[in-house]
Amino acid sequence: MRVAARSVSLGDLIDHLGGELIGSRETRIAQVAPLDSAGPEELSFLGSDAYRAALQQSRAGAVVVRSDAGISGRTLILASNPYAYFIRAAELLNPDPEIVAGRHPMAAIHPEAEVAQSAEVGPFVSIDRGARIGERVRLGPGCRVGVNAQIGDDSWLHANVTVYAHCQIGCRAVVNAGAVIGADGFGGVFDEGRWLKMPHLGRVVIGDDVEIGANTTIDRGAMADTLIGDDVKLDNQIQVGHNVVIGAHTTIAGCTGIAGSTRIGEHCVIGGAANLTGHLKLTDRVVVSAGTVIMRSIDRPGRYTGIYPSSEHRAWLRSAVGVKRLGEGGDAQRDRQRRHTNKEDDEHGGNADR
Amino acid sequence: MRVAARSVSLGDLIDHLGGELIGSRETRIAQVAPLDSAGPEELSFLGSDAYRAALQQSRAGAVVVRSDAGISGRTLILASNPYAYFIRAAELLNPDPEIVAGRHPMAAIHPEAEVAQSAEVGPFVSIDRGARIGERVRLGPGCRVGVNAQIGDDSWLHANVTVYAHCQIGCRAVVNAGAVIGADGFGGVFDEGRWLKMPHLGRVVIGDDVEIGANTTIDRGAMADTLIGDDVKLDNQIQVGHNVVIGAHTTIAGCTGIAGSTRIGEHCVIGGAANLTGHLKLTDRVVVSAGTVIMRSIDRPGRYTGIYPSSEHRAWLRSAVGVKRLGEGGDAQRDRQRRHTNKEDDEHGGNADR
Amino acid sequence: MRVAARSVSLGDLIDHLGGELIGSRETRIAQVAPLDSAGPEELSFLGSDAYRAALQQSRAGAVVVRSDAGISGRTLILASNPYAYFIRAAELLNPDPEIVAGRHPMAAIHPEAEVAQSAEVGPFVSIDRGARIGERVRLGPGCRVGVNAQIGDDSWLHANVTVYAHCQIGCRAVVNAGAVIGADGFGGVFDEGRWLKMPHLGRVVIGDDVEIGANTTIDRGAMADTLIGDDVKLDNQIQVGHNVVIGAHTTIAGCTGIAGSTRIGEHCVIGGAANLTGHLKLTDRVVVSAGTVIMRSIDRPGRYTGIYPSSEHRAWLRSAVGVKRLGEGGDAQRDRQRRHTNKEDDEHGGNADR
Repeated sequence: MRVAARSVSLGDLIDHLGGELIGSRETRIAQVAPLDSAGPEELSFLGSDAYRAALQQSRAGAVVVRSDAGISGRTLILASNPYAYFIRAAELLNPDPEIVAGRHPMAAIHPEAEVAQSAEVGPFVSIDRGARIGERVRLGPGCRVGVNAQIGDDSWLHANVTVYAHCQIGCRAVVNAGAVIGADGFGGVFDEGRWLKMPHLGRVVIGDDVEIGANTTIDRGAMADTLIGDDVKLDNQIQVGHNVVIGAHTTIAGCTGIAGSTRIGEHCVIGGAANLTGHLKLTDRVVVSAGTVIMRSIDRPGRYTGIYPSSEHRAWLRSAVGVKRLGEGGDAQRDRQRRHTNKEDDEHGGNADR
Repeated sequence: MRVAARSVSLGDLIDHLGGELIGSRETRIAQVAPLDSAGPEELSFLGSDAYRAALQQSRAGAVVVRSDAGISGRTLILASNPYAYFIRAAELLNPDPEIVAGRHPMAAIHPEAEVAQSAEVGPFVSIDRGARIGERVRLGPGCRVGVNAQIGDDSWLHANVTVYAHCQIGCRAVVNAGAVIGADGFGGVFDEGRWLKMPHLGRVVIGDDVEIGANTTIDRGAMADTLIGDDVKLDNQIQVGHNVVIGAHTTIAGCTGIAGSTRIGEHCVIGGAANLTGHLKLTDRVVVSAGTVIMRSIDRPGRYTGIYPSSEHRAWLRSAVGVKRLGEGGDAQRDRQRRHTNKEDDEHGGNADR
Repeated sequence: MRVAARSVSLGDLIDHLGGELIGSRETRIAQVAPLDSAGPEELSFLGSDAYRAALQQSRAGAVVVRSDAGISGRTLILASNPYAYFIRAAELLNPDPEIVAGRHPMAAIHPEAEVAQSAEVGPFVSIDRGARIGERVRLGPGCRVGVNAQIGDDSWLHANVTVYAHCQIGCRAVVNAGAVIGADGFGGVFDEGRWLKMPHLGRVVIGDDVEIGANTTIDRGAMADTLIGDDVKLDNQIQVGHNVVIGAHTTIAGCTGIAGSTRIGEHCVIGGAANLTGHLKLTDRVVVSAGTVIMRSIDRPGRYTGIYPSSEHRAWLRSAVGVKRLGEGGDAQRDRQRRHTNKEDDEHGGNADR
């Protein structure tokens, strides 16, 4: 774990972040830590009642708890959302490294690109004609910003991120290494013995406060834009197809795939390795469990799941036979029923073709 | 959406692309658009009867339809495959940016590499000893071409693509950002307390007219080559294992994984997030649904599916219990049957060991 | 297939690698090959009895077999593990290209980084302040090594690999192109109308002899480190979440996702496209089948599977209806039972509210 960049007194901490201090303003905190590993110079928090025993054992110098937690006998900060308070304290103690404004001599910046003076352009970055890089943007080594693309103020693109031509990223974005924004979408029509592909005329347009994980890919739209709303959080290795729309505050965990033209509402939570097929519409506040394939639109908030339960291999083999039989059973049953019905038809003269 | 690079008269359009014009040759078209958003300077198309109502409402300046569509009263182009015609019109209006032949001063090109004069080599590209770059190839910023690797004429590698040593890409390929061609495959043997790995002596050999999506990875063969046929289309984030063979015209959607030595026929369509285990053989014209795991070879064309249907979480919990019970039931039944059989054996003296 | 870099006599081969030679020490071997394609100058091996017929047909110049294989009448090398012996012979014939110590003039190395004289630093590599690069390390073109990161002796990072600040990679690692080590993990808390994210204070710490596939991503820990044990082998496009622990000698196939804080034991084998949800604990020697979602901890070694069996689409549709009905059936049954129970309650006066 990192050594904190700073240390603060609890007095300074509550002056910055609010909360009610039970204890001395002079106590100093050098880092944050979970209850079970925190030492006397570290701040911890009680996230839920499940950790009360851990709290009793904890050597933490101070602990953030809810005001109704009913804890006493140690240094406390009372806050309505202890975990959120704890995160803000962690941010205070561990600020991002300071931005170093300027352009690395081994960056390739097109003379017709606009790059703010306050931006930090790392080595081997390429910025193409007409691109606009906002105030205090950080472009890590090897980032690619295409023709007319735009990066909003205070965004941070880590190493080797690619932003294709015409795409837009809002303010305060964090884009992790290897992410690719704006490649062409997939699909086409087979004609005269080969696949023919629609030239993709749309862009990717990304709102403010968006986080994009490492090696995540977001395709540009075919004839309209792919849209990522404000405060959307995308984990690593997510694939977002062309013309997808993701509503504000939605979070999507790693390895999930979203096929073309699907629209996801606001405040949705999509689990890891889920898959949404194309042209669906998910309403707001839908939760999709990890590993679930969604093939139909969802118009009611709630949690949706579809995972084959895992078992020891032998037990699975038997259950899989049973599941397959459900498919064959239908056939056999229908065949039996059809034979039966035909027989009845015969007996009652129902077959008009006779 | 992008502003078109050109505008054309319908007369010029049909002179280039064929089709029968119902209307004035002078009408000008500035862009393509779907029926519901097209304006008077835009061309649209009727892809299927489902869009007839949209066609009636559409303000499109001209619409491509089948000659037997029975539409009248507006400017039309009659064509046998309206979507294909529409795509060709889109290509005409939105040509790729012109290639700028030459080598960026900040590219690292080995003196023993052969790079065509007509190729465009972007900034921070590295090309290793013995590599060959064909006519009019575009290498985006940060591309890596390894020792003796070959890129065929008119191919376009977008940013940060890696082609390992000895691999070959055919003509007219499009390879999107972050794709990795030719890393070693996976697997080995455990010996003397550690994993031992076969050095990979094969290559990746890719045909003509292939498209490879962003962050897709294709491993080199172990003792033979990994082969990708002509006109194969691979979406983003696909993983192709060592020694895989993919037949011509096959298309594979995003996030799909194909394990080592599996052979896929021609004209197959593999849905997104599918998974094919190793050493399988799929015949031509197999369709695999999104999210499906294929564990056995398929020798009959057709569509194959295996997806756990999603439900509200509570309903899923109950169905999952039922599915698991199919596995346990088998055990219990077999145990009952075994006990019964043993009893019969006892009664009839069937146990030779007695 | 590659032309071997060397050729050796069988005498030299067994002097280097051991094994018992049945045949002439003078016979020369120029490459390795499978039984069915090997020629008179190639070495092959008998991996299992399934290949005995292939062995009879094989033109291989020499074959590695077990001493108890009972083969005669051709040139043989007897070894206890023929496949392992064969791999060692392949390594001998096909050594890695020689390292070329030195720093490419177009690399960006911070003056406060420590880079061994024997290391090979490729073009467009960036190495940040305080980073340490060990002896004989190879950094392929476009690699990024962050502040204070460490790469152990004899490791090889292929092109465009990113190692974030403070992360550590042990000795003899192979990291394939596009891999990202040390991006922030995922998750947060919703507070005051937006997502709040924990600053990630942990590192990724990777042991010795680890292999990491192309475009694989490993997140740094939040308040502790993400730990990858010695001799772990990770295939392409794997996602490893924050605070995950992977025990020594465990191998994981491509496209697998491991959610945050899950701990995997030693000598586990995880199939491709598997998904492990967060906060699980898998004991040693667990095998997870490809495509399986694991949602519960596993404390017993063995193989675990959960895959919906694939069928022709129509058969699947029927089985899926059956599976869904298992979920609804529970409801209907419960409803029936509840009605029944209420009725009994009524009849027996069991309802206290009356």
